[in-house]
Amino acid sequence: MNRYYDRPHHDGSSLYTSTLGRGVGATQFVRVRVPQGFGVPRSMFVRVVCDAEPCFFPLLPGAASPDWDTAAEWWEGNFALPNPITKYRFLINLEDGSTRWLSADGLESLEPRDSSDFRTTSFLPPPSWAHQQVMYQIFPDRFARSSGASRDIPDWAEPAEWQDAPVAEGPSTSRQFFGGDLDGITERLDHLERLGVTLLYLTPFFPAQSNHRYDASSFDRVDPLLGGDEALVRLVEAAHARGMRVIGDLTTNHTGDGHEWFRAAFGKPSAEEADFYYWNDTDHTDYVGWYNLPSLPKLNWDSRELRRRFIEGDDCVVAKWLLPPFNLDGWRVDVANMSGRLGTDDFNRTIQQTVRATMDRVAPGRVLFAESTNDATADFDGEGWHAPMSYPSFTRPVWNWLRRPTVNRRDFGIPYESAPAYSAADVVESYRRFTAPYPWSVKLLAMNAIDTHDTARFAEAADDERQLVAAGLSYTLPGTPVVFAGDEFGLRGPNGEGSRTPLPWEAHPRLLAAYNELGRLRRASVALQTGGLRWLYADSECLAFVRESDEGAELVMAFRSSSELALPLNVAAALEDAPALRFGSIAFRREGAQLLWEADGPAFGVWTVRSLITAHASAPERVNANA
Amino acid sequence: MNRYYDRPHHDGSSLYTSTLGRGVGATQFVRVRVPQGFGVPRSMFVRVVCDAEPCFFPLLPGAASPDWDTAAEWWEGNFALPNPITKYRFLINLEDGSTRWLSADGLESLEPRDSSDFRTTSFLPPPSWAHQQVMYQIFPDRFARSSGASRDIPDWAEPAEWQDAPVAEGPSTSRQFFGGDLDGITERLDHLERLGVTLLYLTPFFPAQSNHRYDASSFDRVDPLLGGDEALVRLVEAAHARGMRVIGDLTTNHTGDGHEWFRAAFGKPSAEEADFYYWNDTDHTDYVGWYNLPSLPKLNWDSRELRRRFIEGDDCVVAKWLLPPFNLDGWRVDVANMSGRLGTDDFNRTIQQTVRATMDRVAPGRVLFAESTNDATADFDGEGWHAPMSYPSFTRPVWNWLRRPTVNRRDFGIPYESAPAYSAADVVESYRRFTAPYPWSVKLLAMNAIDTHDTARFAEAADDERQLVAAGLSYTLPGTPVVFAGDEFGLRGPNGEGSRTPLPWEAHPRLLAAYNELGRLRRASVALQTGGLRWLYADSECLAFVRESDEGAELVMAFRSSSELALPLNVAAALEDAPALRFGSIAFRREGAQLLWEADGPAFGVWTVRSLITAHASAPERVNANA
Repeated sequence: MNRYYDRPHHDGSSLYTSTLGRGVGATQFVRVRVPQGFGVPRSMFVRVVCDAEPCFFPLLPGAASPDWDTAAEWWEGNFALPNPITKYRFLINLEDGSTRWLSADGLESLEPRDSSDFRTTSFLPPPSWAHQQVMYQIFPDRFARSSGASRDIPDWAEPAEWQDAPVAEGPSTSRQFFGGDLDGITERLDHLERLGVTLLYLTPFFPAQSNHRYDASSFDRVDPLLGGDEALVRLVEAAHARGMRVIGDLTTNHTGDGHEWFRAAFGKPSAEEADFYYWNDTDHTDYVGWYNLPSLPKLNWDSRELRRRFIEGDDCVVAKWLLPPFNLDGWRVDVANMSGRLGTDDFNRTIQQTVRATMDRVAPGRVLFAESTNDATADFDGEGWHAPMSYPSFTRPVWNWLRRPTVNRRDFGIPYESAPAYSAADVVESYRRFTAPYPWSVKLLAMNAIDTHDTARFAEAADDERQLVAAGLSYTLPGTPVVFAGDEFGLRGPNGEGSRTPLPWEAHPRLLAAYNELGRLRRASVALQTGGLRWLYADSECLAFVRESDEGAELVMAFRSSSELALPLNVAAALEDAPALRFGSIAFRREGAQLLWEADGPAFGVWTVRSLITAHASAPERVNANA
Repeated sequence: MNRYYDRPHHDGSSLYTSTLGRGVGATQFVRVRVPQGFGVPRSMFVRVVCDAEPCFFPLLPGAASPDWDTAAEWWEGNFALPNPITKYRFLINLEDGSTRWLSADGLESLEPRDSSDFRTTSFLPPPSWAHQQVMYQIFPDRFARSSGASRDIPDWAEPAEWQDAPVAEGPSTSRQFFGGDLDGITERLDHLERLGVTLLYLTPFFPAQSNHRYDASSFDRVDPLLGGDEALVRLVEAAHARGMRVIGDLTTNHTGDGHEWFRAAFGKPSAEEADFYYWNDTDHTDYVGWYNLPSLPKLNWDSRELRRRFIEGDDCVVAKWLLPPFNLDGWRVDVANMSGRLGTDDFNRTIQQTVRATMDRVAPGRVLFAESTNDATADFDGEGWHAPMSYPSFTRPVWNWLRRPTVNRRDFGIPYESAPAYSAADVVESYRRFTAPYPWSVKLLAMNAIDTHDTARFAEAADDERQLVAAGLSYTLPGTPVVFAGDEFGLRGPNGEGSRTPLPWEAHPRLLAAYNELGRLRRASVALQTGGLRWLYADSECLAFVRESDEGAELVMAFRSSSELALPLNVAAALEDAPALRFGSIAFRREGAQLLWEADGPAFGVWTVRSLITAHASAPERVNANA
């Protein structure tokens, strides 16, 4: 059992930080909330790592503010940003002579490592529209066939009927061809609008020799099997007309062995593309494939010409698809963590910086997501990729909490003998752990998917009730909510390949209404989009947190099973009668000084409460002379 | 209270790892010790981060080995090193269906961050002699005046008598001039030999305008006030003749404003040295000083000519003093963490790589220490600096455990209101935390100083008994033991300036015999020099660990106060009757299945036990076909 509500809090949201100016030298204002009952601070300091050496700047008690749950004291101060990425944490000296450090990893008595620090970045933030999105992931071959879809079957393909089950193992996984296309998506935008999603993420649409198309044979045109360039233009225009956005999927790690660059380079050491790949021999017929797969030759980013063509020039691949007539709203980058990394080579940071600089130059205001299956905290600091597709902070912990104990599968490539059994408190700890080193701007956009085309379907592991608890967390925790096409039908699928089920359009999307409710709440709530995250409580069966902003706050409760949660919050007046959203049976009542929530089975609820800390909206003007 | 003895263990020592070959692709053998009583593994894997993506390789049970404390199972396997710095940890699946991760941060159920991983480095290790050293830090102005010392008083100096107290505050701290010199050291080598130290670390000997000489006015000659170049040659030759080594102190962060490079550059934008510094104006009279100190202009490492003269060329400063006739055995680098870092500039890694490459090229087999007052784990991975002067892992925790509760000073630049009160378990946790991310080679050399010329003297905070407990830890934990000249006299001093007391040669060095005992033990014990570190136990008042190698092991006990420690070790036969070393009153006896140690007041003891795991000395030949 973990009580967080009586601990001091800070996060990167506008309630707790603001920056005057931009870049090194800008004044950073910071504030710490100290709840009554925690202890009385005698003094407080912000410890800032300046050119790799710690400096301390004093904080002072701020204006007392009536608070919603229990009275709190606010301490505030500021410092000049010493470096492009600045690490900071707080030292709290208490009246009883003891000391606490408050870092992004939480509160403790011993000195933390610098890797636990809060991080603030002076690089350009993502566009503000990015925070308002609900993402929908589409694997084009499996979404929908358009009414006028081509029925051409390429050489590599094994044609399937739309109602066939996807092959989950063996070489046919990538050859089984259902023939979904881009116009199929365009024709189904009504469905997506009803679902309440706003940002379509398309897995690759480039021509390839597989149904997943991560083995591109060109980055220069849309696969004719998907309808060609014109179909993409039609899709993006139709989506934009409805206020939806569309992003594409780039493989910076590798191309297909059928790629025009690779065909030009193979066996031709004098080709202009010769240095785009890694060769094991002098006549360039033996090459390095990703994971030794011959179909996926690994790109060598030492090549200046590769950089120019792919990510750097005004007419490079990255730029072309963001510009008219295509007008994509951004990219998701595949295998981003491994891109540019091989043995002693590490060009990853160069790729990040260059892709981002090109986007910011030729098409400002687009978003840039990047894949990482693993701890991504070292690669995301606001300079390159905007935000990760990061499984360890959200997807895996939520699975480990909500899946049936009988489910015993190695879902995420980790060779467990039995699926780990997490408590709700473990979910909190894992979310904290794998997001703590991110700057706030990265946390706010990180993709929170309950499943993807690379995992089993969540419905394999849990029933609809628990799926909605998971989806609820996806829509309410900091990050971008993600729906994998078909989640709304409660589709199943045993693994990454088996989860790519064609959408059963004849069936009733039984979770659509619930997702729609989540989307409506998310789109309307500034607190859910950009508000701070303050954990209140977690035990084995439930967790509670609040998202807070100047414009309101949302109190969120998630239950795995029948359980009761009591919080000593002085907040009754602030809670509206009915929850803003409720899945499952969850009741709220007041009992003396406590508020009680009672769930009967899996349940998820959100209560909208009044704007809490409006007195602090003027934070930037409070800058004092400390720094 | 923390029991570590019943947990699985791995470290980077030769009992647990070995590498066949060198560099990327080399085979790394790893082994995990699983004590009886922990649980029965069903399977085990080593998780290796390959090009930023986790891969898993199986471990298998190894040959059962009779063990010294309690029977243990060994699991072993191997993998090919994917990158120059490789991160790895272990996944242990237990028969009961639960799972543990074993990383350098310890054992836990939730997925750790990659920053918790063990790290192995494929860069050249430090010379093996480095592990056999006991370091003695000398601040030349305060050590000894030679019989023929010059009595010249420079303009900047305020002459002091040898028995004067050092000024601890104000501008005189750097001007007070006692006139110690290098021949003074040479004349006192008998004392150092009796003390049992082997590696002399001299704070700067270059000419300057202060007693500390960190504001060099040249890197090209020894300060005539110290006896000039010839005195250094005499000292190094005399030291070498006794089997002692000598290292110097370099400031790569700044020079003095009297430095010949700065004088050449000041006001002369066309000077060859113009780009060695940071200028705020076009006529080069307004410059950036370290911490805005005008006396310490900050070096700008963007300058290729600066690199060539200082750290890169065969005749550069770094090289010159390692070559005849000076033959220094290495360097300690001042303010290493801030060197090359200023605002948006970060040339730190370039400095590290270049200094190290120059040393390895012109004078192989030398050591390279570097200062960091803070978490140094991001800067030390075996590629550049060999090892840190790192306060958070050793100095501060040991102080916080052993100092009198009444001592209430901000000793280390952290604005505590009261000195933190650590338990022995906190010392273990802090040591672990701030060394975990180091590769083993870095851990083995990290300077473990109980005080330095930048801190108060340990004797300010504790009595002789506790100082010897602290010194005992300095000599027995992984790392380089460090004695700050005068510690053996039990000198006092309230802060970094006040601790630079001239050595009271007329007094009896009352702790010399104890330090000598520690030095003898350290120099004789391969386990203390390079053996693994396995924590056994820690509570508030005491801690216990074992250093283990193929050639023997040392069992170490440290007590802050009267206390008892019981360990369920099946080891009586292995413990010799008398401890190899004992400070204070500490008794050992057997009671049933338990071994008991009882201390009466502060105490420190080391028991040498027989070679434990010799059957595993042939580890490299056990490589199997997993990888």
